This record gives sequence, C-alpha cells and structure tokens, in this order.
Amino acid sequence: MDVPLLVEQARGDSPAHRTRAVARLISLVEDAHPALREVMALLAPRAGHASVIGLTGSPGVGKSTTTNALVAAYRRLGRTVGVLAVDPSSPFSGGALLGDRVRMQEHATDSGVFIRSMASRGHLGGLSWAAPQALRVLSAAGCDVVLIETVGVGQAEVEVASLADTTLVLLAPGMGDGIQAAKAGILEVADIFVVNKADRDGADTVVRDLRYMLSLGDRRTDEGWRVPILKSVASRGEGAEEVVAEIERHGQWLQAHGQLELRRRQRAADEVEAIALTVLRGRIGDLRGGSGLAAAAAKVAAGEADPYAAADELVAGLGG
Amino acid sequence: MDVPLLVEQARGDSPAHRTRAVARLISLVEDAHPALREVMALLAPRAGHASVIGLTGSPGVGKSTTTNALVAAYRRLGRTVGVLAVDPSSPFSGGALLGDRVRMQEHATDSGVFIRSMASRGHLGGLSWAAPQALRVLSAAGCDVVLIETVGVGQAEVEVASLADTTLVLLAPGMGDGIQAAKAGILEVADIFVVNKADRDGADTVVRDLRYMLSLGDRRTDEGWRVPILKSVASRGEGAEEVVAEIERHGQWLQAHGQLELRRRQRAADEVEAIALTVLRGRIGDLRGGSGLAAAAAKVAAGEADPYAAADELVAGLGG
Repeated sequence: MDVPLLVEQARGDSPAHRTRAVARLISLVEDAHPALREVMALLAPRAGHASVIGLTGSPGVGKSTTTNALVAAYRRLGRTVGVLAVDPSSPFSGGALLGDRVRMQEHATDSGVFIRSMASRGHLGGLSWAAPQALRVLSAAGCDVVLIETVGVGQAEVEVASLADTTLVLLAPGMGDGIQAAKAGILEVADIFVVNKADRDGADTVVRDLRYMLSLGDRRTDEGWRVPILKSVASRGEGAEEVVAEIERHGQWLQAHGQLELRRRQRAADEVEAIALTVLRGRIGDLRGGSGLAAAAAKVAAGEADPYAAADELVAGLGG
Repeated sequence: MDVPLLVEQARGDSPAHRTRAVARLISLVEDAHPALREVMALLAPRAGHASVIGLTGSPGVGKSTTTNALVAAYRRLGRTVGVLAVDPSSPFSGGALLGDRVRMQEHATDSGVFIRSMASRGHLGGLSWAAPQALRVLSAAGCDVVLIETVGVGQAEVEVASLADTTLVLLAPGMGDGIQAAKAGILEVADIFVVNKADRDGADTVVRDLRYMLSLGDRRTDEGWRVPILKSVASRGEGAEEVVAEIERHGQWLQAHGQLELRRRQRAADEVEAIALTVLRGRIGDLRGGSGLAAAAAKVAAGEADPYAAADELVAGLGG
C-alpha cells in the first residue's frame, strides 16, 4: 500500500481519487490497520479544523433524515461536509444500519460531501479510538463540517458528545422521550435539542417537557450556554437552516469562552490515551511469548491468585 | 472500613448481615473503590463456582419477568440465586432502570436470593471490569447461580455473553425481532433462545424465523451445541422450568466438552487485562505530576504531533 499517495489523493484536486482515498483511509481506521501510524504522521500537520457536530437520538426520531437536511443546508452555504454514521450495535459484522449506498443517494454526485458508515467494532476505547482518526482523514480531505451520527443507546451518545464540538440531541413526539431523556443522561450531553417531526401531535408537549427538565438542571447555567430547543420537520427540510444557525452560534460561544480549545484538547487526550492503552494491551498480549495473560488467567480461574495480584504481576512484567 | 469483617459477614450465617455485606461489597465494585484489592485478595481462595447465566433482549421482551420466573424455578430446586441487573444506558446517575426495591418485592424475604442493580459507569473495560468482581462477591456469599440481566442494546449483550457460562437471548412476538436479531449479532451470542409472551399472536413466526436464521449460520455446528428455541409466558411462570432444564443441559455440555473451563479462563483473562489496563491508565494519568497526558494532548490538538507518536512517548514514559 502506498500510504503517502493515498494521503496525497485524499487532499488532492481529483474528486474521484479523493472520495476513494478517503474511503480507503477510513477503512484502515475501522480495521485498526498497522499503516495508520504512517497515515496519522502524514496527516498531523495538515489535520485542519473541521467543526465536529454530534447527532444522536433514539431509533425512529429521524436521525438520517435530519443529517440529510443538515448536509443540504451546509451545502447551500458552500461548506464541504463529512458524515460519519456510527453504528454502535454492530461489533461483529462491520455492516452499519444503513448502507453507504442508501445514504448517499441524495448527495452521491456531490464531491463536497463525504458519507461513511462506520461500525464501532469494540476497539478498546471504542469511538474514542476510531472516530478522531476518521475525523483527521475527513479534515485533511477539506471538510469544513463533520457530522457524527449515532443511535442514542448505551453509552454511544456520551461518547459522541465527548467527540463533538456541538452535540445535537433529536427527539420526536409520541416516543415517550420526555422521561427517557432524563434517564439516559441525554440532558447532560445536549448542546442543542431538536424536536423533529414537529408537524405531529405532541411536539409542543415534548418541547414543554424538555424546557421543564432543563429548568430543573443547572448543568449549563454556570458556563452560560442556554441549551436551545428547536423544532424541525426534517423530511421536508424544515428547520434545518435554524439548526445550522444555532450550531454556528454555539461554535462562536465555544470560541469566545475558550471552550473550543478545551474540548479539542480533551478529545486529543482521550485519543492519545486510547492509543497508548492499545499499545500497552498489545504488550500485555506479548508477555512471555504470548502466554503471560493466559497463565495469569488460569491462576485466577483456579482461585490461586486474585485478579489484582495477577494484574500487578502483568504490569510489573512490562517493566513499568 | 473493616474489610475482613465485611467479607466474613458476606460468607456468614446471619442472613441479615450477609445481605447487607453483599450489598456493600458490590457498591465498592461499582465505585471502583481502592479497598477492592483487599476484598478480592480475601475472596480469591473462596470464590466458589457459581453458574453464570446471561440474559439479554430488547426492551419490552420481558427480561425482568423472566428473571423473576427463573429465580422462582431455581428456588424450587433449592438453589441460592444472585441477580445482577446491569443497566448499560446509565453511565451518569448510577440509578438503574428498575430500582432494587421494585425488583425485590417477590423475593424480598427470601435469604436465598440476592438481587442487585448495577450501573455500568463507563469503567475502562465496562462490564468486563465490574461484573466478574461482583460475581466473586455473590459466589462467596454462597450463590449457586448468578443471573446477569441486561438490555440488549449496544455492545452490552456481547459483553454479557463473554461473562456468562450460558447466554439466554429473549425475544417476543410483534417487535420485529426476527430481523433485528441477525443485525445485532444476537445469533452469535445466544446459547439458548427464549420466545417470551408465547401466548401472543406471532410467537410461532418468531420461532420459525429464528430456526431459519440458525439454519443459515453454522456457528455452533462445529462445537456440537444446537441452540434450542424455547417458548415461555414468564408473567405466568410458564416455561421457566424448561428453561432451567435447558440451562443445566448446556452446563453439562460445556463441562463435557471442556468449554466451561475455557470460558472461565477467558473471563479471568478479560478481567485481569481490564484491571491491568486500569492500573496503567492510572500511571499514564500520573505522568509528569499529572500533566503528561495534557501536554501530549495539547501538542496533538495543535497539529505538532500525531496521536501515535504522542502515545508512544507516554508509553515510553512509563518505563515500559
């Protein structure tokens, strides 16, 4: 594999080469390919500064439709957009909920849009490991904005929020989301709420419930950002412009309050830590010719050692 | 805190002390408390050999009802039962979907049952870190069987399967589970399928769909375990005895084929690795008086270093 050529093509002028090179580079990230070291070294000085927008919500609230509407709105502003659709429920297959082909239909011929589904394959560190590297690739390819879309289940929405400059949480009427939101910690991660399918009965109730819950919490008050609640009908593109405007406003707020740099450093810290731990995990795997961990596990399983003592022994074996 | 006394009480003859001590010890696990090292060292030689049953499925298939029915069935056989209800969607609050009090009603006065909700608080290693330690506590308290129940979203069901000797996957009619199952990798983790709410329309379709999908895959054929599909109406306790019988049969199969020891060693390996990585993560956090990671992150965020080079530097700083 000619890594320098791939990186060059990802940044180059030929749309066809660029799209293919970006796809290949993100596949390397997905596969945790050894060539990534070289890729990231080449990308580092050119990583660019795409705005990273997280988008999460329960199944059925209209995440894909919203992503499409936002992409269209950004394109009207002349921005180049990358989309990472992360499927946290698919550690095995690498197949995402929606295939790239389905998702790309609307923007397939637009060289200013990169859309990519990515399975989070249970890497150590999960999204923290893979997504920042995919972001680097998309930034290098010239994306002004990268949307990371994921289903709001499990810890995925928390991980997405830790990756994003601005996190949108989508809700929709008739899904019992009001109560759900509080439970799943969605209140804690949202920078902007979007109540989609706002033409349906119950949209105002969702808005009212959210407003009430926000009034109970005080997460943002000390930082000064009041979490807005917008309405949209993404299937008709309604509200997308307002959402984009609010994202911009949040971006300016982040910048003005030094939060953007803070978030990006935190993201880099998570990424570096995840990579370091992956390296260390590899070394643990290599201990005693690959049998160190198994030997320790056998002792623990037999009750001859407790797991902490066994772990300490492994760590000592690393020379640390 | 008098750790030896707590451990003694968890294994002791007083049901009241035992229940309280088990609850406190599992709280220590939840909190990743420093005293765990001492707890686990004391428990190691006495950890016992509880059968570990994983139970997973989409929201609404009847996991809690099934757990209750299985607990009752095991109690009729005179077995002591522990239940760990893991809520993967609650990294923040520590509050689980169902409170312990609600869940305990039926078995509240039975000293042969321990029921405990546990939030998976985003520890490094997640369930792999916390659950085996909670299992040790329950084993030491004399549990013959531990049921680990979790919602089948995200990677939770995969993690539960890696912890369990036997994994039950629950489905129910009318939830579109047939197709879902294949997507979420549920086929790959199930040792036994239970179609709950079998008195409803569509139960036979679910069974047929599952049978068809199992016929397509060949996961188990090489190992010789044919994944059975059972029906139950857990709300009326129907089918619980059959499920328990099938779990026993699977346990015997595991033993006869050397798989039980294999699974337990693998579980111990995951646990020891997760603890070792937590120790190493702590050391990374301590580097250069706590500023090492932040300094590396700042360089990466500024594009002055790539994340791999920064990670290598941290690892080298550990003396490894």
